[in-house]
Amino acid sequence: MTQSAPPISRFPVPDLASLPEDIRQAIGKVAEKSGFIPNVFLALAHRPAEFRAFFAYHDALMDSDQGLGKAERELIVVATSGLNRCQYCVVAHGAILRIRARDPLIADQVAINWRKADLTERQRAMLSYAEKVALNAQEIGDEDHDALSDAGFSQDEIWDIGAIAAFFGMSNRLVNAGDIRPNDEFYMLGRE
Amino acid sequence: MTQSAPPISRFPVPDLASLPEDIRQAIGKVAEKSGFIPNVFLALAHRPAEFRAFFAYHDALMDSDQGLGKAERELIVVATSGLNRCQYCVVAHGAILRIRARDPLIADQVAINWRKADLTERQRAMLSYAEKVALNAQEIGDEDHDALSDAGFSQDEIWDIGAIAAFFGMSNRLVNAGDIRPNDEFYMLGRE
Amino acid sequence: MTQSAPPISRFPVPDLASLPEDIRQAIGKVAEKSGFIPNVFLALAHRPAEFRAFFAYHDALMDSDQGLGKAERELIVVATSGLNRCQYCVVAHGAILRIRARDPLIADQVAINWRKADLTERQRAMLSYAEKVALNAQEIGDEDHDALSDAGFSQDEIWDIGAIAAFFGMSNRLVNAGDIRPNDEFYMLGRE
Amino acid sequence: MTQSAPPISRFPVPDLASLPEDIRQAIGKVAEKSGFIPNVFLALAHRPAEFRAFFAYHDALMDSDQGLGKAERELIVVATSGLNRCQYCVVAHGAILRIRARDPLIADQVAINWRKADLTERQRAMLSYAEKVALNAQEIGDEDHDALSDAGFSQDEIWDIGAIAAFFGMSNRLVNAGDIRPNDEFYMLGRE
Amino acid sequence: MTQSAPPISRFPVPDLASLPEDIRQAIGKVAEKSGFIPNVFLALAHRPAEFRAFFAYHDALMDSDQGLGKAERELIVVATSGLNRCQYCVVAHGAILRIRARDPLIADQVAINWRKADLTERQRAMLSYAEKVALNAQEIGDEDHDALSDAGFSQDEIWDIGAIAAFFGMSNRLVNAGDIRPNDEFYMLGRE
Amino acid sequence: MTQSAPPISRFPVPDLASLPEDIRQAIGKVAEKSGFIPNVFLALAHRPAEFRAFFAYHDALMDSDQGLGKAERELIVVATSGLNRCQYCVVAHGAILRIRARDPLIADQVAINWRKADLTERQRAMLSYAEKVALNAQEIGDEDHDALSDAGFSQDEIWDIGAIAAFFGMSNRLVNAGDIRPNDEFYMLGRE
Repeated sequence: MTQSAPPISRFPVPDLASLPEDIRQAIGKVAEKSGFIPNVFLALAHRPAEFRAFFAYHDALMDSDQGLGKAERELIVVATSGLNRCQYCVVAHGAILRIRARDPLIADQVAINWRKADLTERQRAMLSYAEKVALNAQEIGDEDHDALSDAGFSQDEIWDIGAIAAFFGMSNRLVNAGDIRPNDEFYMLGRE
Repeated sequence: MTQSAPPISRFPVPDLASLPEDIRQAIGKVAEKSGFIPNVFLALAHRPAEFRAFFAYHDALMDSDQGLGKAERELIVVATSGLNRCQYCVVAHGAILRIRARDPLIADQVAINWRKADLTERQRAMLSYAEKVALNAQEIGDEDHDALSDAGFSQDEIWDIGAIAAFFGMSNRLVNAGDIRPNDEFYMLGRE
Repeated sequence: MTQSAPPISRFPVPDLASLPEDIRQAIGKVAEKSGFIPNVFLALAHRPAEFRAFFAYHDALMDSDQGLGKAERELIVVATSGLNRCQYCVVAHGAILRIRARDPLIADQVAINWRKADLTERQRAMLSYAEKVALNAQEIGDEDHDALSDAGFSQDEIWDIGAIAAFFGMSNRLVNAGDIRPNDEFYMLGRE
Repeated sequence: MTQSAPPISRFPVPDLASLPEDIRQAIGKVAEKSGFIPNVFLALAHRPAEFRAFFAYHDALMDSDQGLGKAERELIVVATSGLNRCQYCVVAHGAILRIRARDPLIADQVAINWRKADLTERQRAMLSYAEKVALNAQEIGDEDHDALSDAGFSQDEIWDIGAIAAFFGMSNRLVNAGDIRPNDEFYMLGRE
Repeated sequence: MTQSAPPISRFPVPDLASLPEDIRQAIGKVAEKSGFIPNVFLALAHRPAEFRAFFAYHDALMDSDQGLGKAERELIVVATSGLNRCQYCVVAHGAILRIRARDPLIADQVAINWRKADLTERQRAMLSYAEKVALNAQEIGDEDHDALSDAGFSQDEIWDIGAIAAFFGMSNRLVNAGDIRPNDEFYMLGRE
Repeated sequence: MTQSAPPISRFPVPDLASLPEDIRQAIGKVAEKSGFIPNVFLALAHRPAEFRAFFAYHDALMDSDQGLGKAERELIVVATSGLNRCQYCVVAHGAILRIRARDPLIADQVAINWRKADLTERQRAMLSYAEKVALNAQEIGDEDHDALSDAGFSQDEIWDIGAIAAFFGMSNRLVNAGDIRPNDEFYMLGRE
């Protein structure tokens, strides 16, 4: 059913050898950790300054040890990427979510419809706000922030939810505009 | 991350023993074939007349040996169920699609965004029409039918595409209204 | 203003004589009762298995003597078919609604905008849920079911409302995809 | 199924005797012609200056003997009022359309879905533009005007189409905001 | 960045000398007051009866000394014209709003997103209702009117809000369909 | 009409003195250049890592000397921020657009409705693609990229358009979620 060797991006993918040293090292590091190079690294590499800012921003939001848990952060990514219908982000972060939540089912549930997923009330409040940031941020008001406070989220955590939903609002659009393809390796990660 | 023992439906699920004989046999047959009872059979069983009509209709559309191939039929189900954000149908028919297409990746691709999936031009024409039936049937016109004829579909095949998209338009709504939960077994089928 | 002799469907309409005996009898029975053959019977007849399942399902939902009243069931059909902009279903079931409700005005009101129609609070609660099943089933949650319970609907009646809205979600799509034309006879029924 | 004596507007309806002479005469004239007072005259009468401007505007657009035919003008009203889900305008102008087009079926068809109605190509081009003015005027461009020129419409006729769709964009909103109720008499006019 | 001498309308703009005396006088009067002829006067002049009705209606709604304040009326115009993405109305009425509210910032805020503008609770209630009239009048119900009563608006003021939002629903569509261009003079008015 | 001293963000704004040295310097530099501190710098300062990544990304996309011109880049920002209804970005980047394009009118035009603005065909092609990235990136396909190539854009320029629309898709959501307020100084810049 597949076409042979689909490209990983509409845009040029540079040779690793031609890349600036820091970018080559960053790619080497993720390849070592994952066992493969996630395509988004290759697809952004033709723009070194944007590559550096993108991953610095990503890591500041997703790898923090404070506030939201790491699985919670991935829940936001998978839910909003599903709403934005971004294949790369759902497949790649779905894998990470399965691993971080130690739950082989949750990512597919949340990607399709978080309202029907196995979630706690706290998680539902979090994703309800993330959905509004993703789809209707212009109408956010006091009542949305109050609902999160009522659910026990701190101001710092509320910022995190909004910032992650906003960052993947960018990432989903970049990927959809550039037809960046998820690596085949992601699909099975964390399912066993 | 899951709540313990989530129910399979908002509505009552009858004991197998209490069901009419033909329905008990139908359930027995699918359980034998699948190795488990797909929850939609249990969730519809409290309404025997609707159960019989639903599965008769389903089988007439999905098990036909004429016209569209079986994997093509499942592509329509997964694509439109993704657009309608129906967890049960994406998870269950995603499994069947993986098996029928002998492709472990295609279902997740199509569920999220069929436009970004590994598809042939013929399949894209098919899903473009199915999407319009699912989301905007009131605007279907000659140009939509002409596009399918141009792509090589017969009148009978065009009917199939529309009828499958329409039938799962019903099924997706039943499932979303009733919170019918996909069996855990579906998630891994056809992935290896 | 009309074009001469518009076809009743985009798809082939078989000769009555060529149909399986049970389908010919079903058509004969409705023709006797109505005084004419509703076009949807002719438009589905080229697919006998689908024809049988469609009308078995329809009758299970619309002709039941338990739970919702028959005029209430038709209210759901006309309201959701109006939202889905399905000419055949609004015209045909509008006629049935006028007859069953013994009200010559209600169908036109509900077809255009049920919120502005002459309805009881119970009927408004029913159509509010039916509208959500028709247009936004993926967001249905506890609060929607609670509103119906509060309005006095039993679990069986709630199922009926959702199932009718879902079934006509299919029927409306079939009709819009196939350009199935309502019989001229329906327009005046129940208006005097 | 109806509640007894529903009001004709959310807002105050003045006594005829209290109205300015010119408005009383205007109402008398329409009552004589129609056999009853259309409720919109009563619902606007509490604002004499708005009443005068509304009907002057209405008559300038709908009673002109130049350019578009009178039935064509009513087609635009019924189609756009259906899209805007305005019960009063669909019921009242549906009656006028049936009379002016001498066609008992066309109004119900167009109100539900003009794409599925018995229309000429010229009429379809006209309603396609009217729909865009009603629903998406901000995106109108050269291609929309060119399509009308290609279909044989003069600049004056194109203005008429847009102006009628815009005027009923106002009228539909006034009626929906004020819950102005169509007179029972309209429903049967022009159906025989 | 501009093209030279863009036309002020897609439709013919008559010579002032050729216009009926009352229209010439009306245009003279506004030119004297404003220092220039607002283009909408020229763009409507080819239709004298519509011109007269349009401005009579406009003045009845916008120049009243009763009920809503004049700056409040302009708030409604700028907010709904922004939602309808009408360049002429936002630019021209933005200028009037700045002048009437003696506030150089408020118009740009409200045009982009009234929810984020410097407004009182009373003004927010007003614009919330105006937005619903502009975008979703078919769903207006008791709760919307109750919210305005609770915020202290009289029935006459509620009518004004709805009528202004409805009138500019028409005006915005006329302008977008006709590509009527705002005069350059408006942009700087009231900014100092 | 304004409330006294509205806050510049829903979230905490740190003292300049408490900030890391590099961030204090970055803020000092922009204050020197602009004559005031744009509020977005203060609103992001409580998150130093995100602040650094955000502005590094912003500068990589907006200050490049290659490919798209700087006024073109600002056109994309103002158009998409208008579509996303982001007050801060429209007001602040509207000012920059006026300055870079040396055109006092273009920003207000584009913010409200770029289709009605004084633009070249090349600019229209650019904003049509940017709009699709902003609102409907999931449906981008070959035809969208071909339209840009046909309009003379290089692959690098197409990337820029998409990346800018995506970045401000993030920025607009951050600002709307955090209610970040534009400085009063922006409104008049570039208008003389």
